[in-house]
Amino acid sequence: MTTNHSPLAPNRFPHMPPIAGVRLATANCGIRYQKRDELMVAVLDQGTAAAGVLTRSLTASAPVLWCREALKGGRARVVVANSGNSNAFTGRAGQQTLDATVDSAILLTGCESHEVFVASTGVIGQPFPSGLIPAQMSNIASGLTAESSGWTRAAAAIMTTDTFPKGATRTAKIGDVTVTINGFAKGSGMIAPDMATMLAFLFTDAAIPAPVLQSLLTDAVDRSFNAITVDGDTSTSDTMLLFATGRANNALPKSADSIELAGFRRALNEVALDLAHQVVRDGEGATKFVKISVTGAKTDSAAKRIALTVANSPLVKTAIAGEDANWGRIVAAVGRSGEQADRDLLRISIGGILIASEGMAVPGYDETPVTRHMKSGNIDVLIEIGLGQGNATVWTCDLTHGYIDINGSYRS
Amino acid sequence: MTTNHSPLAPNRFPHMPPIAGVRLATANCGIRYQKRDELMVAVLDQGTAAAGVLTRSLTASAPVLWCREALKGGRARVVVANSGNSNAFTGRAGQQTLDATVDSAILLTGCESHEVFVASTGVIGQPFPSGLIPAQMSNIASGLTAESSGWTRAAAAIMTTDTFPKGATRTAKIGDVTVTINGFAKGSGMIAPDMATMLAFLFTDAAIPAPVLQSLLTDAVDRSFNAITVDGDTSTSDTMLLFATGRANNALPKSADSIELAGFRRALNEVALDLAHQVVRDGEGATKFVKISVTGAKTDSAAKRIALTVANSPLVKTAIAGEDANWGRIVAAVGRSGEQADRDLLRISIGGILIASEGMAVPGYDETPVTRHMKSGNIDVLIEIGLGQGNATVWTCDLTHGYIDINGSYRS
Repeated sequence: MTTNHSPLAPNRFPHMPPIAGVRLATANCGIRYQKRDELMVAVLDQGTAAAGVLTRSLTASAPVLWCREALKGGRARVVVANSGNSNAFTGRAGQQTLDATVDSAILLTGCESHEVFVASTGVIGQPFPSGLIPAQMSNIASGLTAESSGWTRAAAAIMTTDTFPKGATRTAKIGDVTVTINGFAKGSGMIAPDMATMLAFLFTDAAIPAPVLQSLLTDAVDRSFNAITVDGDTSTSDTMLLFATGRANNALPKSADSIELAGFRRALNEVALDLAHQVVRDGEGATKFVKISVTGAKTDSAAKRIALTVANSPLVKTAIAGEDANWGRIVAAVGRSGEQADRDLLRISIGGILIASEGMAVPGYDETPVTRHMKSGNIDVLIEIGLGQGNATVWTCDLTHGYIDINGSYRS
Repeated sequence: MTTNHSPLAPNRFPHMPPIAGVRLATANCGIRYQKRDELMVAVLDQGTAAAGVLTRSLTASAPVLWCREALKGGRARVVVANSGNSNAFTGRAGQQTLDATVDSAILLTGCESHEVFVASTGVIGQPFPSGLIPAQMSNIASGLTAESSGWTRAAAAIMTTDTFPKGATRTAKIGDVTVTINGFAKGSGMIAPDMATMLAFLFTDAAIPAPVLQSLLTDAVDRSFNAITVDGDTSTSDTMLLFATGRANNALPKSADSIELAGFRRALNEVALDLAHQVVRDGEGATKFVKISVTGAKTDSAAKRIALTVANSPLVKTAIAGEDANWGRIVAAVGRSGEQADRDLLRISIGGILIASEGMAVPGYDETPVTRHMKSGNIDVLIEIGLGQGNATVWTCDLTHGYIDINGSYRS
C-alpha cells in the first residue's frame, strides 16, 4: 500500500455540513489496521427512506446479500460499514459475523432488522471474528455526532488502498425548502477484492418516498459509478446506498421525474459523479484522469459499450500512461466492442484536435497541441461514430507500473 | 521492443520438413525494419484448397477484408504476408497498396485474384507505399524454396514484437498415406495493433476439400487461438489460414468428422495449440504460462466464458505475476462472468491443491506446495463450478511491468 496521495487527488476533503437526522461515529476495532478507525456507523432518525444499488456479482459477499433483502423494506435506521475484511467467501462463519453485527446494531438503535444496512470491504476469504464489531458498539454510541468532523472521520474509516478520503456535498431546493446531500465513498479499483472495493453512502435531509429515491439513485448511478472503470473488474462487495431522513420537511414528491425534483436530481447526480470521479482519480497507480466520450452511436447503450471497451483496453490505457496519442489502439477497441461502427465514418479527436477521420489519419494534423495535451493530467478522447444519435461518457485512468506494484505484491 | 527472448520461449525452432506443393521465400522490402526480412511469400501448387478464420473486428484491415472475399473461392495459389505495417486504417491509399500487392502476386504465379491471400501486421494508420512489396517480387521468385530453411525464415519474417519465431509440425495418417502439417505464427499480444497482431499460416500436403478444411480449422481454432488471451484485446488484423495442397494424394475425405480424418484432426489441433501456446509464451512481458480449466459449468460455452473472464482479469494476472495464490480474485472474476455460479459449490485448486471450497478457504490447507507452484513458470488453476457438465480450458500469461514497458512507450 502506498502512503502517498494520488497525483490526481483533489486539494482537500470538502466541508460537509450536518444533515438533520444523521449522526456518525467511527472506531478502531482490531480487524486489520492498528492505527486508524476501521468501523463507521451512521444512525438515522425514524422515518428514513432507503435506496441502494448493489454489485451484480454472483459471488456477492454476505453483507451484499443482506442489504439486498433489507432494501425491500425501503427504510433504514442504521448503517454499519467496516474496512479491513470484506466478509466475502467466508462461508457459514461469515454469516454468523454478519448476524452478530446486525444484532449489535439493533441493540444500538432499537430498530427492526430490515432497517439495518451492513457493508464490508477488505480482504476476501479471511475469517472475520464475529465479536469485533459488537464490542465497539458502546464506543460508537458515545461517539455519535451530527457535526462536520463526523463526516470526515467516516470517509476515512472506510478507506482501504485509497490514498485519500472521498466526500462531496451539494444543496438543492425542493419547492421552497433547501435540502442538502452529503456523500462519501471509497474505492481505488472497481475491484481489488482483497484490499479494496467500491462503497458509497449518500445522505439527504429531503423527504422522498423510498420508490422515488430508488429511481433517482439508479439513474444517478448509471451516469456516475456505472460509467467509470479502473480495471474492468466488478467486485463481490460493491455497495451504494442513499438515505433520506425527511427532516427537511419538504412536500413529498410523487415521482422521480416530477418537476419539483429537478434541482434535487441535478444535485444528486453531481454528488454521485463527483464521488465517482474521485474514485477514478484514486485508481490504483493512476497518473491520468481520462474522459472518453462517444457520440453518434446507434443507441445510448451502444455508445456506452463502445466507450467502456475503449476505457478498459489495456493497450489504450498503457498508451495514455506513455503519453502517446495512439488512436490506432482506440480504433481497434471500437472495432471489437461488438457495436456497429464504420471505419470510414469514424472520427477520433484527442484534446479537441481531430486526428483520425475518413478511414485514416488526418493528413498533416498539428501534433504539438495533442502532445501537450497527452502530457497533462486530464485526457479527453472524443469518438464520433457517425451512425446515429447515441451518446455516452465514461471516465477511467491510465494503466501504469503503479497498478502492477499495488496488485502484484504478496498479500501478507 | 525487447531483444531478449521471453523466459517462457521453447528451446529452439522445430525442424520443419518440406510440404509437397509449398515453396517459400522472404525479402526485406523497406517497410520498417532495416536489417531483417519483413516480407514472406508462399507459392502453392495448383489445386490447393484454402480455409481461414479472420478477426471479427468491425474495423478490420484492408487485407482482412480481402481475405474474407477470397476465402469464398476456397482455393489458393499464393500467400503474401508482411510485418512492419498492418495496412489498417489507411483509407483509400491502403486499398491501392493492397491492390498493387495482389497484382504483383498474380504476376508471380499467373493465378486468379481470388487465389491470392494477403496478411499485414505492424503499425496501424501509417501510409504504406504501394510499390514496396511489388518491387521485391523478382527477388521472391528467385528465392522460392521447398527446403526446411525456408520455413525458419518465413516464421521470422512475420515477427513484430515477438521475441522468438513460432513454428510447429506434426504428421498424421489419412488411410495409408502419411501427411504433414506445418505451421508458423506470430503475435505477442492478442492485439497490439501498432506493433503486433496474431497471424498464423498452416500448410499440409493432405488432399482435403475446402469446406471440410474450413470445418476442421474452425474447430481447431476454437480450442487453440480462440482459447488464449494475453490482454483481452482483439486486433484489426488477426488472420489464420490453412492450405491443403493435396500432393499427398490421399483419398478425399467427405466430411470433417469422417473416421479416416481422426488422426489428421488430432494433428491439426496439436499444431494449432502448439502455436497458440507459443503466442502466449511470448505474451508481452510474460513470466508465467497460465492454464485455467473450468469444469462443471452449465455448458461448455459457459465454462469458456468463466475461464476467459478469469484469464482476462488484471487482478488475477497481477497476482500471478506476484506469485500470490490469490483465490479471492478468482472467485470475484467467476462471480462477474455473468454465468451461473454458486459461491458454496465453487471449488478452486491451484497446482493440484484444493484451496477453496464450500464458500470459504479450505481450513489448514498446505500452503507450501502451492507457494512452490506459484514460483514456477507454469501455473495451473482449476475451477470446479459444480453445477453441470460444461468444461473449457484457456491459456494466458501474467501481467507484469514488462507489459507496461512494451506498451507504454512512445511509438516513434
